[in-house]
Amino acid sequence: MGVVGAGQLARMTAEAASALDIDIVVLAESPDDAATRVAAQVLVGSPRDPTAHSALAARCDVVTFDHELVDLDALGDLVSGGAVVRPGLGTLALAVDKAVMRRTLGEAGLPMPAHRIVEPAEEDAAAAVGSFAEEHRWPIVIKTARGGYDGRGVRRVAGAADAARVLAEFGPRGTLLIEEDVAIEAEIAVMVARRPGGERVTWPAVETAQVDGVCREVLVPGRLAPALLGQAAELGAAVAEVAGGVGVLAVELFLSDGRLLVNEIAARPHNSGHWTIEGSQTSQFENHLRAVLDLPLGGTDPTAAAVATVNVFGGEGVGPPQRRLAAGLTVPGAHDHLYGKAARPRRKLGHVTVCGDQPTTGRERAWAAARALGTPVPEGLELEEAS
Amino acid sequence: MGVVGAGQLARMTAEAASALDIDIVVLAESPDDAATRVAAQVLVGSPRDPTAHSALAARCDVVTFDHELVDLDALGDLVSGGAVVRPGLGTLALAVDKAVMRRTLGEAGLPMPAHRIVEPAEEDAAAAVGSFAEEHRWPIVIKTARGGYDGRGVRRVAGAADAARVLAEFGPRGTLLIEEDVAIEAEIAVMVARRPGGERVTWPAVETAQVDGVCREVLVPGRLAPALLGQAAELGAAVAEVAGGVGVLAVELFLSDGRLLVNEIAARPHNSGHWTIEGSQTSQFENHLRAVLDLPLGGTDPTAAAVATVNVFGGEGVGPPQRRLAAGLTVPGAHDHLYGKAARPRRKLGHVTVCGDQPTTGRERAWAAARALGTPVPEGLELEEAS
Repeated sequence: MGVVGAGQLARMTAEAASALDIDIVVLAESPDDAATRVAAQVLVGSPRDPTAHSALAARCDVVTFDHELVDLDALGDLVSGGAVVRPGLGTLALAVDKAVMRRTLGEAGLPMPAHRIVEPAEEDAAAAVGSFAEEHRWPIVIKTARGGYDGRGVRRVAGAADAARVLAEFGPRGTLLIEEDVAIEAEIAVMVARRPGGERVTWPAVETAQVDGVCREVLVPGRLAPALLGQAAELGAAVAEVAGGVGVLAVELFLSDGRLLVNEIAARPHNSGHWTIEGSQTSQFENHLRAVLDLPLGGTDPTAAAVATVNVFGGEGVGPPQRRLAAGLTVPGAHDHLYGKAARPRRKLGHVTVCGDQPTTGRERAWAAARALGTPVPEGLELEEAS
Repeated sequence: MGVVGAGQLARMTAEAASALDIDIVVLAESPDDAATRVAAQVLVGSPRDPTAHSALAARCDVVTFDHELVDLDALGDLVSGGAVVRPGLGTLALAVDKAVMRRTLGEAGLPMPAHRIVEPAEEDAAAAVGSFAEEHRWPIVIKTARGGYDGRGVRRVAGAADAARVLAEFGPRGTLLIEEDVAIEAEIAVMVARRPGGERVTWPAVETAQVDGVCREVLVPGRLAPALLGQAAELGAAVAEVAGGVGVLAVELFLSDGRLLVNEIAARPHNSGHWTIEGSQTSQFENHLRAVLDLPLGGTDPTAAAVATVNVFGGEGVGPPQRRLAAGLTVPGAHDHLYGKAARPRRKLGHVTVCGDQPTTGRERAWAAARALGTPVPEGLELEEAS
């Protein structure tokens, strides 16, 4: 299987692939990328370079992705040339472009925040923002349709002056999405895996906590009512059906005023599914492989009553988490995962998962291990609640 | 971490190492060996070549092993040169040489089958066998002290003529071990992990089934009384203390006439511990890494009430298990592991683990998946009992 991208998602996919004796070829931007040490073969090249795509496709049966920063036109040429690309161009278009996603899911009648798609090249973006804000009240959210992740390309704006600054920053060319600023009671993620013939499995819906647009923790089942989580899983599966495609799909939902709304989707393994490595019968990485290679999918039952995953970030003056591994491994039950990446602000360097009987204990331990690995506790996240 | 050998044990160690961002360098006899595709670095050379050892040691902090076919003298030179070799030469000597193992454990008063060490170069081996058989009755077992594994170098002999043939086959040079042919009620394996400072963890004792000296299945907890399994775990831990050393140690026991006897030991991850990948909080591979690198050890609690692991072998005309992967993945809950090795008689090509609430269901499913992957059910193993 070929993977465009060689970050931690490709790396954890390669770990799962080894057990099934499936060779992974990664297209890495740098020979130092996270997945290069565990992949069977490494190609170095740009994920937007058609020549690199062709070289990758020539070495493998199926091409898949560990990020969305791809050139859809170039991939179209690759498919025309006979390469098997999964999830597929239609699904990738939804994942790459939030405007396409909103339009497609909207046509299917799926619940989403109120939104409007704006083409700054064709209309007065400031006027469009103004009339949307008049209808939905400030603040509103302005997003670039493409290129955003981990909170990048997303701005909450409080008024017209604020909006003008953000519109200037985002520039006149790319499609924008303006959305109501929904009151978020909780964020929920649903992972779905789908085979070419339509066979589909859904993992239990999980509660995620974002701070500044970056996921900090995932709790399974979290603190929400089981019935609500069941509805979330059904909505996630419905989104996956509309998105079509093959492989793992992540659906991020808001709970707002008691309603579930689709926030974003990703057509690949996702941070909110890392808990499945130890916490589910089959990991998202293994089922992504199985789906993309058209093999029977594995079960998605949790292996424990409660699973908590906390992301590892670098902090000021604490050094890389690798140097603190002994401390990170002292916490009972902590499964430490380090991605071998250099520390940069907001960059995920690893994660810790703890499975157990007690949600609070698991969350405490996962945070204890993440902190031992150097992760600062972000402002805005209540840890005391867990103790 | 450097590993002498690049078979499936090194491969599964490398899978675990990736999660902890630890780079594995393997010394492979061939660039096609099982671990070469997932290891961070690969050296090709003989495990008995001192130059290859030195090249390996120069690239890593610690050298460890995935088999016992090593030259202890050469390793001694490596250690004298400043390399860190774990488990350590004393422990390796026990694992490499069954005569040294019997002598050392015997001096510690640990229970073993009646045995006698014979040096054919110095004494009349046939006479020694004769007098031993007179005391313990035919049949007896004759083993080469070195070089045996998976039943190789082990012969059960029924009388003097039989013994003469085996003695001729084993030759006049190597040390032999002659042992009583104990009536085996059950075989039990205990895995222990030990850090340099003596910190030690023991996994639950498991029941194993050997056919013709080759392990076919591992059942956790198996069908024996919990108290007996507890005694087995204690005996395993006692053997690990006498053996000393660092890393994972496998202790194979016989249950005979209600008594536990030490059969063999291996100073490395072992087939009877593969169940720990999904079936235990920490796998034998991860704890081997953690022990050898002097990191805190992980917990060894089972993750399920019952775990069954069945080894995958090739059969006549069934093709490699890789081609049957889709069938192997249809069995609910089956964790398939394929080692990427070419099929040869008696060669382990993979294993399947099933975790669950019910021992019989898990065993049935693990066998169903192993059979779907092409494994013939061996004569002498009762599968009906499980249904």
